[in-house]
Amino acid sequence: MFPKNAWYVAATSEELGERPLGRRICDEAIVFFRGPGGTVAALDDFCPHRGAPLSLGTTCEGRIVCGYHGLQIGCDGHAVAMPGQRVRGFPGTRVYPVMERYGFVWVWPGEAPKADPAAIPHLAWAEDPEWAFGGGMFHVRCDFRLMVDNLMDLTHEKYVHATSIGQPELDEAIPRTATEAGFIVTRREVSSVKAPPFWRSAMRSNGKDDDALVDRWQRCVFIPPSAVMIDVGVATAGRGGFDAPTDCKTAGIVVDLITPETASSIWYFWGLARHFQAHDEALTRQIRDAQGKVFQEDLAMLEAQQRNLEARPGSKLLNLNTDTGSVQARKLIDQLVAAERAPSVQVPASGRPPATSAVEAREQRPVT
Amino acid sequence: MFPKNAWYVAATSEELGERPLGRRICDEAIVFFRGPGGTVAALDDFCPHRGAPLSLGTTCEGRIVCGYHGLQIGCDGHAVAMPGQRVRGFPGTRVYPVMERYGFVWVWPGEAPKADPAAIPHLAWAEDPEWAFGGGMFHVRCDFRLMVDNLMDLTHEKYVHATSIGQPELDEAIPRTATEAGFIVTRREVSSVKAPPFWRSAMRSNGKDDDALVDRWQRCVFIPPSAVMIDVGVATAGRGGFDAPTDCKTAGIVVDLITPETASSIWYFWGLARHFQAHDEALTRQIRDAQGKVFQEDLAMLEAQQRNLEARPGSKLLNLNTDTGSVQARKLIDQLVAAERAPSVQVPASGRPPATSAVEAREQRPVT
Amino acid sequence: MFPKNAWYVAATSEELGERPLGRRICDEAIVFFRGPGGTVAALDDFCPHRGAPLSLGTTCEGRIVCGYHGLQIGCDGHAVAMPGQRVRGFPGTRVYPVMERYGFVWVWPGEAPKADPAAIPHLAWAEDPEWAFGGGMFHVRCDFRLMVDNLMDLTHEKYVHATSIGQPELDEAIPRTATEAGFIVTRREVSSVKAPPFWRSAMRSNGKDDDALVDRWQRCVFIPPSAVMIDVGVATAGRGGFDAPTDCKTAGIVVDLITPETASSIWYFWGLARHFQAHDEALTRQIRDAQGKVFQEDLAMLEAQQRNLEARPGSKLLNLNTDTGSVQARKLIDQLVAAERAPSVQVPASGRPPATSAVEAREQRPVT
Repeated sequence: MFPKNAWYVAATSEELGERPLGRRICDEAIVFFRGPGGTVAALDDFCPHRGAPLSLGTTCEGRIVCGYHGLQIGCDGHAVAMPGQRVRGFPGTRVYPVMERYGFVWVWPGEAPKADPAAIPHLAWAEDPEWAFGGGMFHVRCDFRLMVDNLMDLTHEKYVHATSIGQPELDEAIPRTATEAGFIVTRREVSSVKAPPFWRSAMRSNGKDDDALVDRWQRCVFIPPSAVMIDVGVATAGRGGFDAPTDCKTAGIVVDLITPETASSIWYFWGLARHFQAHDEALTRQIRDAQGKVFQEDLAMLEAQQRNLEARPGSKLLNLNTDTGSVQARKLIDQLVAAERAPSVQVPASGRPPATSAVEAREQRPVT
Repeated sequence: MFPKNAWYVAATSEELGERPLGRRICDEAIVFFRGPGGTVAALDDFCPHRGAPLSLGTTCEGRIVCGYHGLQIGCDGHAVAMPGQRVRGFPGTRVYPVMERYGFVWVWPGEAPKADPAAIPHLAWAEDPEWAFGGGMFHVRCDFRLMVDNLMDLTHEKYVHATSIGQPELDEAIPRTATEAGFIVTRREVSSVKAPPFWRSAMRSNGKDDDALVDRWQRCVFIPPSAVMIDVGVATAGRGGFDAPTDCKTAGIVVDLITPETASSIWYFWGLARHFQAHDEALTRQIRDAQGKVFQEDLAMLEAQQRNLEARPGSKLLNLNTDTGSVQARKLIDQLVAAERAPSVQVPASGRPPATSAVEAREQRPVT
Repeated sequence: MFPKNAWYVAATSEELGERPLGRRICDEAIVFFRGPGGTVAALDDFCPHRGAPLSLGTTCEGRIVCGYHGLQIGCDGHAVAMPGQRVRGFPGTRVYPVMERYGFVWVWPGEAPKADPAAIPHLAWAEDPEWAFGGGMFHVRCDFRLMVDNLMDLTHEKYVHATSIGQPELDEAIPRTATEAGFIVTRREVSSVKAPPFWRSAMRSNGKDDDALVDRWQRCVFIPPSAVMIDVGVATAGRGGFDAPTDCKTAGIVVDLITPETASSIWYFWGLARHFQAHDEALTRQIRDAQGKVFQEDLAMLEAQQRNLEARPGSKLLNLNTDTGSVQARKLIDQLVAAERAPSVQVPASGRPPATSAVEAREQRPVT
């Protein structure tokens, strides 16, 4: 159960090289390839000739060439050529709206006419040379909402990540959920503490005294239908924490772009965008490797939780104050799904702010 | 199809250390852990908060701590604590009756009020220092009744174990099934033969002349719903075989405790309790390793038989005289299941003797 | 969906040694073994005693002995003996018509009375010392008709086998399908070209000038329900190609014997029968290894195509001129299946010529 009229990350730009890439997104089998000039294209991964997956083929002059008998199809889904055949009457292949932006390939698995590129979340850090990004992708066998739950309730860190990133001071902070600039935001904050090792090192490289007292924050922002951006960082104590002036802060954004593969599996694109030592590529790799190890700790739990819930359909769970972020996120998701099923149902404006303006709103704060 | 109102072995005591153990028993997902003072506890393996398996958690002061967000639950299924939460109103978690006895963890997956610890089979050898036990556990993909069949009809030894334990003299003995002390017992006996290598060695260590003629026996005792204890041994020829005075005998019990995981898979706890060289731990290991290899020969057969029968539901099998033990065992099992489904149906008293007294009856014979 | 009243290759003669062989053919679980004098027998792979697969047993004096409790069954399906039992009243076991011919074990999974050994395709090369054969077997997860499609439309060579056997001149030749001697035949031919490396080497060993211009051909012959024999070769240019006198030709037959395991998986017996250097066993092995590598290139495509089609039942495919051979082959298959389901439906005589005479017809041409 997922909205299909939405932009989802299908792949990183790096993943899509010369060879086509087949990936199931929201239960749609899609082939991604680079058309003329390297522009990304996305088609139904099904050759109209004999049903072979086009993703087993190759590309040639911006067309995809079926690897079975050589039917060539353009980015617009039209058959273009095939040895010994006239292809003019061949049926077209479904085209999916697709965009390459911020280092990701975004696809719209639902109704094409509704796909508005402006609805792709605005990720300002991805275009700012003062920021660096490193990340990876995991395939996880769970409902995408379990991953959203996981990321909107970071109290799990103390348990799932006890030996890696759990941090006592923050673990004891009470999370508070509120709507900020139209987004669901769950915060945990702690004031006037010594920074933990990761942030000390970041502060030093950011030209700060790493021994000074700081205010720390985690600020989970849910971007419908399935992204969670977590502002993390430290600021000189007493200057406003997350809202402190930029020159008092050392900060980053934990990036979580979650794409349903099926109702019970996801492609999970994760990473860290950081606002310090942006040009240190060795550091990017080092953080990515460490983050990958930490995020893998979630996988066994999420997959076991999925199996447990599948075995007991309809079981009622507890929604605690720590779950408020997830509960509100799920409400939005439910509204989006309901609106797709019964188009006359209106999604409340407050429920789904235009993603671009909202994320911009966040970016316009003095974070960066 | 299995009785749920019964004690089943869920684990060996050794398996259950500091970490919780999740195991499916009779289609119930159960977490086992050690409560205060090391007492075994068994709960539904489902955290009431978000459905995570509790078995992925830890224990702390005799409570289980969910590994996702830290809900602590006591052995009585009551929520005890959770960071930042009042847990008084939390729903309880189902508690399964559980006992640790004879080196095994026994669980009652059915209606708790009916669980009587006295109904756990009495295994006298497990508490007698003159006896030693060594064994192991296999997961097998077959209906538990196929394993009962296997153990109540040892004529399979000649074929399945042809190269390991098949023994010509005994193979030719006709098995006879009778009710003894309320139990279904299938015997095979042979008189005045030379002992085979295993028993020769056992006789020597038991202070007997290993070259003397002996009477040998195999005596399979079915203990409902799914245990089979096989008396095995040799006695000085002409002194009564299994019924000979203890000082004429060198004997043991092949222990088979079979626990349904699902309708088509089991946890199979096997071993040998022996009444000779009880203090020789190297011998215990040696016998266990050899027995493990022999018992593994059954697995491929049982799993293939299961697949064959699943593919042909309702197929009629032949019940030969060699199958009398299994047929009678299955009748008892059917009666137990029927009685659970329609509680007004009475299980005949002869059909299900109180396990304790019956096994005691067996133990009171001059076996040991 | 496959005809069951047909001869299928179940195994190579080599595969069937002293041990019984269990193999599912057209959804029938069958055990193959060697009866008295080594004659092949085929029975239902299900012991009437307890349902064990007979294929886990052994053979003894031409009977199969169940590996569980020793029931012995003769080639005629009658129980013959069992330790301690009178078996006269035991139910019989289904017997499948089976023949060993041409180095293969052929089985008839349908109605036994209709099995006519004369309906086994006549493979003249298999009995001719001037021919040599080498081949292998793959298990492939696809409908057998997808493999027939593959072999009746060799235009896939240019794409699937681009780096191995694709050959530009032939790739450009237009395939033509016609009925020849009652068989569906799809040909591709090219005239007056230099032979490619494989055929050059074959010509030399056949005493021909490998630099001479040749006519080349591929001639795919569909033999219902699921064999494809592909005549391949070269002849001195201008002498008639495939129809040239034998002394002008260097030729072989790509052998494809396709046996449904289930509706979505096959046992694929492949190989090359060649009419040159017949006594060079090293060459036989070398060609077999090379052919195995090439044929493996098809497997990923066929299995992916199968999954794609399973996910979209009822999807309409394109039948191009290159698919004419497959389309006609599928029509024959459909007719055979329909005739089995409604025996009053007549398969048109032209639709299903007696396989023997037809292949003989082919063999009587001056190929060899």
